[in-house]
Amino acid sequence: MLEKNGQYTPEALGKGVSLARRALGDFSMLSSRKKNEVLLLLAEELIAGKTDIMAVNQMDYADAVSSGLDPAMCDRLLLTDSRFAQMVSGLREVAALPDPVGTGVSSWENADGLKIEKIRVPLGVVGVIYEARPNVTVEVFSLCLKAGCPIVLKGGSEAFRTNMRLALVIKRVLESSGVNADGVFFLPWTDRNVVVDLVGNTDLDVIIPRGGAGLMDIVTRHSRVPVLRHDRGLCHIYVAASADEDMALSVVMNAKTSRPSTCNSMETLLVDSKKEDFLRHFLSVCHERGIRVKGCGVTRRLDPTVDEATNETYDTEFLDLTLNCRVVDGFDQALEHIRKYGSGHTEAIITSDVREADRFWREVDASCVMVNASTRLHDGFAFGLGAEVGISTTRIHARGTMGLAELTTTKYQVWGNGHLRKS
Amino acid sequence: MLEKNGQYTPEALGKGVSLARRALGDFSMLSSRKKNEVLLLLAEELIAGKTDIMAVNQMDYADAVSSGLDPAMCDRLLLTDSRFAQMVSGLREVAALPDPVGTGVSSWENADGLKIEKIRVPLGVVGVIYEARPNVTVEVFSLCLKAGCPIVLKGGSEAFRTNMRLALVIKRVLESSGVNADGVFFLPWTDRNVVVDLVGNTDLDVIIPRGGAGLMDIVTRHSRVPVLRHDRGLCHIYVAASADEDMALSVVMNAKTSRPSTCNSMETLLVDSKKEDFLRHFLSVCHERGIRVKGCGVTRRLDPTVDEATNETYDTEFLDLTLNCRVVDGFDQALEHIRKYGSGHTEAIITSDVREADRFWREVDASCVMVNASTRLHDGFAFGLGAEVGISTTRIHARGTMGLAELTTTKYQVWGNGHLRKS
Repeated sequence: MLEKNGQYTPEALGKGVSLARRALGDFSMLSSRKKNEVLLLLAEELIAGKTDIMAVNQMDYADAVSSGLDPAMCDRLLLTDSRFAQMVSGLREVAALPDPVGTGVSSWENADGLKIEKIRVPLGVVGVIYEARPNVTVEVFSLCLKAGCPIVLKGGSEAFRTNMRLALVIKRVLESSGVNADGVFFLPWTDRNVVVDLVGNTDLDVIIPRGGAGLMDIVTRHSRVPVLRHDRGLCHIYVAASADEDMALSVVMNAKTSRPSTCNSMETLLVDSKKEDFLRHFLSVCHERGIRVKGCGVTRRLDPTVDEATNETYDTEFLDLTLNCRVVDGFDQALEHIRKYGSGHTEAIITSDVREADRFWREVDASCVMVNASTRLHDGFAFGLGAEVGISTTRIHARGTMGLAELTTTKYQVWGNGHLRKS
Repeated sequence: MLEKNGQYTPEALGKGVSLARRALGDFSMLSSRKKNEVLLLLAEELIAGKTDIMAVNQMDYADAVSSGLDPAMCDRLLLTDSRFAQMVSGLREVAALPDPVGTGVSSWENADGLKIEKIRVPLGVVGVIYEARPNVTVEVFSLCLKAGCPIVLKGGSEAFRTNMRLALVIKRVLESSGVNADGVFFLPWTDRNVVVDLVGNTDLDVIIPRGGAGLMDIVTRHSRVPVLRHDRGLCHIYVAASADEDMALSVVMNAKTSRPSTCNSMETLLVDSKKEDFLRHFLSVCHERGIRVKGCGVTRRLDPTVDEATNETYDTEFLDLTLNCRVVDGFDQALEHIRKYGSGHTEAIITSDVREADRFWREVDASCVMVNASTRLHDGFAFGLGAEVGISTTRIHARGTMGLAELTTTKYQVWGNGHLRKS
């Protein structure tokens, strides 16, 4: 069924993508009932195949460890019992979400009584390129199926066998449900240059790359298809002069430590110069909890054991228990720092001054701006929107957390009675 | 002020685009009042400068005619009195439209009482590449200003002097209104390779190309920035067996003849095989009105003077008083023809059967599907949405008529009370 490790040829890639494109009509017309049936059946089949999938995943993991892959990466590709259970329950949650296809965005009549309705339809053929975490395979499939979008998936080579096994289960479930299985194409090749050919294929409607700077660069340079970048998150929290200090400490700690490897974690803390007591207390907490601090001059005067923050560290997404700490001379300097180093992902202020809150909301240009809340809350589940494809750092189409609705486009349905254009 | 015809260098292009990018903050913060003031002042200044602008336009026109440019193209670049008046009144209409920036798309609370609002903010720096019609310069500027977007405009070389004169008036109005004039950059070069460098400039957030296949191809191959294609419209009308024949005739004639050079005009008529009487009458009307018909076998049996329709003519956007006419054997064959040749722009059915109307709406994949209405009505003004940037044939971000709302993106504004991520 899947030509595992078959020789890569551009023709084989082109053929698979073109078949996915041809499946768009079938996928568009799937009823919500059928789509939910497939998702629930897949949940059962994954449970039935768990021993087998976990065994294959252990092989990927062992190879990754013995090849000296970065331990964080090794950890991410590992399917634990709880991650497996999450993958299965994710399918049931997506099945329970309302189907976006066919829902109205708006409707009205023009001056002559022509009825116009704008409704959601599947976005089209979605290409996703991702690394490490094999549960992405199942998550992305479930969201795209629910939105009626065929998919072309290129997973990371380090989780290749796990992904191919998951793909096999998905394909079987589609076939046994009578759904056109051409609509999901898992690239059975590990060659890196597959990516270049994939992003140049105009049978895709959109490319979603989830990965590091290297991947982003290849995709930007070679794509002939719109790209929704899921790029890095260099998120700041500004503790303003008026901030409640207990709230500031708990929010900052949550934003840095609750899961440091995620893109919505805080990387740089900006502390108002009037908050020296807060800063002193914060630095002692960092010591206690093993958080590494890169500090500005003022920070280092308070704690000489702190390393120096530089332009380079301010521009670094640490993704671990390291942070930059800079004392700023009021709101404007905080804003300037965020403008210079922010990645447009998520920015937060801790303040009790309503005018500062308002200025922060208006003047900070990011997909999500927060007042008195942890940056870690920028997430589809935390927002109450359900599963997400990821957090888009692109301005067009979808900005910020991207869920089912963002996997649709629209279509005007117009109803006339012989209406003509008059001018 | 504008280095007219200065030597093109990639550095000069890069500098201008980067200045436009830096103006995004200023443009985002413009009040509706200020934006409307600029638009209304520009309307006055255009009227004051009309003699001068028309004289320069005459020079462009004379050169175009003497260089043997296609007469349709020559006509499009000409500013007549009525086109000039339309350009001016268009500014006043955009000033009267509600400002999309800051309007809410949705708002809710999560399970823990975190308040989340999704609001519209400017899309970003918009690059537009267009041909011939100099009024596009003013239209695009007015819409982008109203949406708070800096613009970089590359007009066609045939209207170069007119565009530069219009740009001069716009720049002066911005300066005298105290608005950052860096936010509008009219490329003062006619070199074709400017386009390649422009679409590779990642200081732009989006590229909107309006033009022919050659331009589309260059943009697709070289862009590193998302592209919203305003591509060709190969629109069909299917006259079903149940169609009211008077309605069918008036709609088809309106769709073909009211302004044949536009992308929402009909190029191919599909007539149900049960409608031979209608077809005979239609062909006689075409004769009377000088409409050239390319016909299928059945059509040519009814009227042997008709030229043969081929795969090539079915794939041609005529943009003049020529059309394809094909007799189809029922709904499914009509659908198949549209799937094969349609450009996903606008498709219509004339029917009195509600089940056919429903199937057409659901199964035809186009930005606009119409029942019993002229394809020419797919237009921002006709829909009652006001001025439009154009009709997007891309699936992502904006599909179909693209107005002010589509020149925005969104930003999440989140309001907490020390809210933390729990898992």
